[in-house]
Amino acid sequence: MSTRQLKLGAFMRPVSIHTGAWRYPGALKDANFNFPALRRYAQRLEEAKFDAFFMADHLAVLNMPVEALKRSHTVTSFEPFTLLSALAGATQRLGLVATASTTFEHPFHLARRFASLDHISGGRAGWNIVTTSNPDAALNFGLDEHVAHADRYARAREFYDVVTGLWDSFADDAFIRDAESGIYFDPEKMHVLGHKGPSFSVRGPLHIARPVQGWPVIVQAGASEAGRQLAAETAEVVFAAAGTLADGQRFYADVKGRLAAAGRERDHLKILPGAFVVVGETVDEARAIRARLDSLVHADSAIASLSIALGHDVSHLDPEGFLPDIPETEASKSSRERVLALAEREKLTIRQLAQRLGGYAGLAFVGTAQTIADEMQEWLESEGSDGFNMMFPYLPGGLDAFVDRVVPELQRRGIFRKEYEGETLRDNLGLPRPANRFFA
Amino acid sequence: MSTRQLKLGAFMRPVSIHTGAWRYPGALKDANFNFPALRRYAQRLEEAKFDAFFMADHLAVLNMPVEALKRSHTVTSFEPFTLLSALAGATQRLGLVATASTTFEHPFHLARRFASLDHISGGRAGWNIVTTSNPDAALNFGLDEHVAHADRYARAREFYDVVTGLWDSFADDAFIRDAESGIYFDPEKMHVLGHKGPSFSVRGPLHIARPVQGWPVIVQAGASEAGRQLAAETAEVVFAAAGTLADGQRFYADVKGRLAAAGRERDHLKILPGAFVVVGETVDEARAIRARLDSLVHADSAIASLSIALGHDVSHLDPEGFLPDIPETEASKSSRERVLALAEREKLTIRQLAQRLGGYAGLAFVGTAQTIADEMQEWLESEGSDGFNMMFPYLPGGLDAFVDRVVPELQRRGIFRKEYEGETLRDNLGLPRPANRFFA
Repeated sequence: MSTRQLKLGAFMRPVSIHTGAWRYPGALKDANFNFPALRRYAQRLEEAKFDAFFMADHLAVLNMPVEALKRSHTVTSFEPFTLLSALAGATQRLGLVATASTTFEHPFHLARRFASLDHISGGRAGWNIVTTSNPDAALNFGLDEHVAHADRYARAREFYDVVTGLWDSFADDAFIRDAESGIYFDPEKMHVLGHKGPSFSVRGPLHIARPVQGWPVIVQAGASEAGRQLAAETAEVVFAAAGTLADGQRFYADVKGRLAAAGRERDHLKILPGAFVVVGETVDEARAIRARLDSLVHADSAIASLSIALGHDVSHLDPEGFLPDIPETEASKSSRERVLALAEREKLTIRQLAQRLGGYAGLAFVGTAQTIADEMQEWLESEGSDGFNMMFPYLPGGLDAFVDRVVPELQRRGIFRKEYEGETLRDNLGLPRPANRFFA
Repeated sequence: MSTRQLKLGAFMRPVSIHTGAWRYPGALKDANFNFPALRRYAQRLEEAKFDAFFMADHLAVLNMPVEALKRSHTVTSFEPFTLLSALAGATQRLGLVATASTTFEHPFHLARRFASLDHISGGRAGWNIVTTSNPDAALNFGLDEHVAHADRYARAREFYDVVTGLWDSFADDAFIRDAESGIYFDPEKMHVLGHKGPSFSVRGPLHIARPVQGWPVIVQAGASEAGRQLAAETAEVVFAAAGTLADGQRFYADVKGRLAAAGRERDHLKILPGAFVVVGETVDEARAIRARLDSLVHADSAIASLSIALGHDVSHLDPEGFLPDIPETEASKSSRERVLALAEREKLTIRQLAQRLGGYAGLAFVGTAQTIADEMQEWLESEGSDGFNMMFPYLPGGLDAFVDRVVPELQRRGIFRKEYEGETLRDNLGLPRPANRFFA
């Protein structure tokens, strides 16, 4: 019997990650405006013993042609800190992971908000560090040119140092609160950071006690060389984007292999690929659900995007036919190959292929509770991952199906918890509480 | 019988505004770390039909000598957006007013967080606009020199224009969500702000629907000439700092008098002075509670501060004696006069005077439910204010005393509501929903 267990996050947008989801029968299409719906989703995830509710984010209306934009529910969403704080009051054990950008935020504000969320939630906060590559976000913050990739990573690393330094402003036992003597805290146990670096000058201290978890859990998604190295040095959860088990195993081996050199233990970083999941009573039913969902993506916009991905205009071809041979061009080679392989593997028509890419085309488990549990178990046991960030095809139905059918099967196999291990997100993920760098 | 009614906010820090509060018998001294305690306070305020929970804020450990700092519970607090969002989930009608700085925040982030809080709370958000004068805050944001007063106000005005413009990004009926046609929203009803000004360049649109209230309620506290004019043009609630009824009446007449020129109705701006309140079974008991609370302020630190306020060193004098004649110096004339008048009026020793100033020395109602209601009614009926932002001397006892004893007396007199008028903060304050500047 396996002793390792899956760690499960839910990667959430209010309506779903899938762009056609709001049109699916029974889907809650107003969820972007409906906090009570999100509270119910969070409470269901907690019943199922998920590790965390992981809030996706972006800092602009997504950059797409108006014909696609007007059909997209992603145009509006809640802001992560306000949403997750409100969910903190409605849950007891579920982790709350906010996406926050090192390019467009200031470290003093971010350190404070995460510390506050961690105190309010009793130690359940996590920070998904992103550097934000959407050029439209820059235009909302007065930057005409988007910050270059290397600059963003250098800034991200300094940002992380400042934030974690601010979290360590007070020793855990700094606050005496002795009413008799009138001493509220011991100033010897307060550290003034005094950071001066290329991107930031931040004096400190942070005016909030050290977070319950020491630091909120550090999450990253970067897959580039710089992103992997930053993850190996700093991340505790990596939100990976593996397309296949073989890809996942390579990524897992690479990132885990970097930990020793960074002076870290192998188990102190959890690799959780994003995984889209569609549950049916039969495999065919699950496939039919997915096909129906994909069919709700606007075909013309999707075919325009497919042409861009292929570097070749396919809009004049019969969308109900299959792709002909497509000549190689200057378009991204890996994206083109991935698309052609997908079309070949699943025998998709041009329209189906375009709608798949426009909906969700990454790693997906589509089948019955049994076949999905088989796949998840294989990833776990063959070092493809330590668990997953689940993405539900539509809400609430897709979430309910996973919680009601797949989770019990994972529990029956002993590869997912039946009860939370502890009170904090770190407890449940099996991560150590970081030492305070300024106080023993 | 009066037809006007008081509007009541609660101006809160987790422990209390008063610096000695955490030492008071029965006070909850760990409230800075204790979200469940704050949830109880908010729920009690809602039972009492308060308009709003008003969260104080600052962006640095408060600038004071270490001997005073180590005795101050203000060294740590929750961050307003995370706290108020968590409280949104635990209340149904209470307004939630967050203090946020136009000097150290970015308008895109702030517009988004307030819109999100307004959606999550069902239309209960308010923004207390501050320009932040604490020079230590600047050091946490990489500014060596604090921004000059005039620059801060010019920036604040532009900031306000950007934020309100972003809130108007979508018409109220922009979101069609027609599953059949696949149209999620009408792009004709989305406005791209395209702001380019001296302080900010912000393209927009904001990627969240227009707030439930149109705009969250706009609150300001500035008392300077620039602050009053900004309030007359933009504020819907003014958090005033009147020391006496005569001061209050002058301020009220001045600010209300500016509204017509700004094209606004007199009732569409509510003036709510901060008022510290101490309730006793008798007036003497209330005074004794206050004296005991003041006695918990550290005398040496308080006397050092008194010397600064007077522009004259009084630390060598007998603290149990009264102030001698103090020569006029270069120190702030109005502050010196206010201090001397207070000492004279209440016959305070040097120690008592210093501790009063170190605790809380502004407008205070100290007495029985009857005498306090009398004073509040006089302010209301003589155009000293439209209500108050109440400050409780210690928690939970001081809040409970006001809610249990004074509120019923105000209700009995018909000058405070027994039920909320509506669902949103605007409904309860009697403020109109702002028109969308881009869509009829």
